[in-house]
Amino acid sequence: MLKPTSYHLKKLGITTPTVVIDPVRAQTNIQRMAGKAEAGNAVFRPHFKTHQSAEVARWFHDAGVRKIAVSSLAMAETFVDLGWRDITLALLFNPLEIQRASRLAQRLAGQKGRLGLTVETPAVVKLIADNMGYRTDIWLKIDTGYGRTGIKWNDSDRIRRVLDKCQELAVPVGLLTHSGHSYSSLSPTEVKDIYTETALRMKAVRVNTGNPNLKISHGDTPTCSLVDDLSACDEIRPGNFVFYDLMQLEIGSCGEKDLAAATVCPVLGVYPDRQQIVIHGGAVHLSKECLTDRNGDPAYGYLGTVSSQGLDGILPQAPLVSLSQEHGVVDFRGKFEKYAQNLVPGDLVLVWPVHSCLTCDQLKDQMANPQTI
Amino acid sequence: MLKPTSYHLKKLGITTPTVVIDPVRAQTNIQRMAGKAEAGNAVFRPHFKTHQSAEVARWFHDAGVRKIAVSSLAMAETFVDLGWRDITLALLFNPLEIQRASRLAQRLAGQKGRLGLTVETPAVVKLIADNMGYRTDIWLKIDTGYGRTGIKWNDSDRIRRVLDKCQELAVPVGLLTHSGHSYSSLSPTEVKDIYTETALRMKAVRVNTGNPNLKISHGDTPTCSLVDDLSACDEIRPGNFVFYDLMQLEIGSCGEKDLAAATVCPVLGVYPDRQQIVIHGGAVHLSKECLTDRNGDPAYGYLGTVSSQGLDGILPQAPLVSLSQEHGVVDFRGKFEKYAQNLVPGDLVLVWPVHSCLTCDQLKDQMANPQTI
Repeated sequence: MLKPTSYHLKKLGITTPTVVIDPVRAQTNIQRMAGKAEAGNAVFRPHFKTHQSAEVARWFHDAGVRKIAVSSLAMAETFVDLGWRDITLALLFNPLEIQRASRLAQRLAGQKGRLGLTVETPAVVKLIADNMGYRTDIWLKIDTGYGRTGIKWNDSDRIRRVLDKCQELAVPVGLLTHSGHSYSSLSPTEVKDIYTETALRMKAVRVNTGNPNLKISHGDTPTCSLVDDLSACDEIRPGNFVFYDLMQLEIGSCGEKDLAAATVCPVLGVYPDRQQIVIHGGAVHLSKECLTDRNGDPAYGYLGTVSSQGLDGILPQAPLVSLSQEHGVVDFRGKFEKYAQNLVPGDLVLVWPVHSCLTCDQLKDQMANPQTI
Repeated sequence: MLKPTSYHLKKLGITTPTVVIDPVRAQTNIQRMAGKAEAGNAVFRPHFKTHQSAEVARWFHDAGVRKIAVSSLAMAETFVDLGWRDITLALLFNPLEIQRASRLAQRLAGQKGRLGLTVETPAVVKLIADNMGYRTDIWLKIDTGYGRTGIKWNDSDRIRRVLDKCQELAVPVGLLTHSGHSYSSLSPTEVKDIYTETALRMKAVRVNTGNPNLKISHGDTPTCSLVDDLSACDEIRPGNFVFYDLMQLEIGSCGEKDLAAATVCPVLGVYPDRQQIVIHGGAVHLSKECLTDRNGDPAYGYLGTVSSQGLDGILPQAPLVSLSQEHGVVDFRGKFEKYAQNLVPGDLVLVWPVHSCLTCDQLKDQMANPQTI
């Protein structure tokens, strides 16, 4: 029943669309991934783009994490301001930001820290070496099958040219990949197969270079969640696992009780005749990322339940069937009477996001010190 | 050719994903719509959620606009801070924000301003009247066919109950609708038919109330752009028209030379073998709003050209075929050699957004004083 849900939510004092985090679930997710990295003798370098949060960063710090990945230079600057000293910008380096990156690397070097940058061309290696000298670690981006960025794992010539440039300029280098195709996997078996293939391909790249000391950095939430033995990597960089979301649940990367972030939204309108409610919670709060429900229609999230203990389950009968800038439409698929008949404008409902990274980014002003539940 | 495009863009000094606005095109769009409102003897109350910009707001002010609509109380507060005095919150009022709304209404009343709030239930009318007395205008939301929020235009009983409550509590009231289904129209004819139907239905609502003095407020960019005679409305509230976008171009609300907002993005990687480039420009910059291209695939935007005069045309051969958090993948559909073969990381490209409201919201920190071109 949603009425009790709303009661528990109202105690939080929320009046507008607000991200809520379950700290116990998030910290459990962190501990589990840290343990897996340790068991595999891999550096745990979580991707902080998911949460962008000073508070959640402290939970990682409490779990012993000192190395992180980010997806923009602005995000790197934010976490350096917060005291983080070992940061990889795990996005192909943008040459237009060379001056800004150089200032950040200099600042980190003064604090015995390191900035890692990701490249795929000799020209960008040279640009970095010319401007930032020894203060930077270079990661050569390898495409092991995702097909977004990086040199194809079997393109030995291009890989060789970048590594030669690094050697010529005496820049420390490692090999980095992101198996992003795991996010479109349909089953845990498929995810594990992607990991096996990725690990084999990265090992082949390293063998081909003739340098067995090259570090291999690997990172995506599905494979890092579903594969038990990550010892083929020297470093893992998952991010989304701290909160997980409906997309990860669908892939099988997590269980329902691992979901640690949701959005609380006010009810604006109630429409029994069409079995719908409209909430204040739209594209600018949740993002337009969507799943396909069993009927082939888009679902931009699902309502959830809350107990006195905090976040509870998912209501598969209550998908968000459309999103405009500020509004979300929830369709109760014939179960309006059961779940929604007592709702009135001003009640609150919980929305499970499809993609927690994007939802947290939409509401990132709240994330420095997020509402916990 | 994109190379000259990049040259003109580099002069702007842009290094990260940045919204660029053509002030001449935007001001022309404003003048055209203001003229149409005037010709129809309708109040022009543009929706400011599209731009959320102090600078663009000044252009509206220069065109004589003094009344505006917004989609959140936070946005209303921002524009009151900037000196705007007559603001309608054109989203169903959220009862949880009554205290905050009351403070804003009080502040506006002290400046001889007005706050307008949108409702559809007697309970919310009473809440507003009890807390904000005469300081507020009530707009009764009517659903003329969109099916998102509002009382159905032919549900005379419910309409009567809300109007009776307004009369009982002596709150000024008008009738407000948003024909949002015009955004999914496939042709200008269909848009015009929606307007005709909307105008007839709103007139029928007013006739049924027996009060010919009730004001009718109407607003959506497709109908306000495509219908010549808007005299059936007392007020129009379009927003998107100030910049337009690819969605409006597809509907036929505007021409290519009316598009006034785009995003400039750095090139991160170039992949001739698969006819693609990857740009720094992802869901957090452009939003995941998409169109369907001629092959039925999603297009999250298209690259454009720039001349020494500013914004130029669209490259239909260069759709953004996928977006992740920070990356966009542009596929040149067989025209890589023609348009992209000289591109290198660090070049800049122009991206036309699918939905300018969402793109500007994603980059709203830039919008107070946007980059012009």
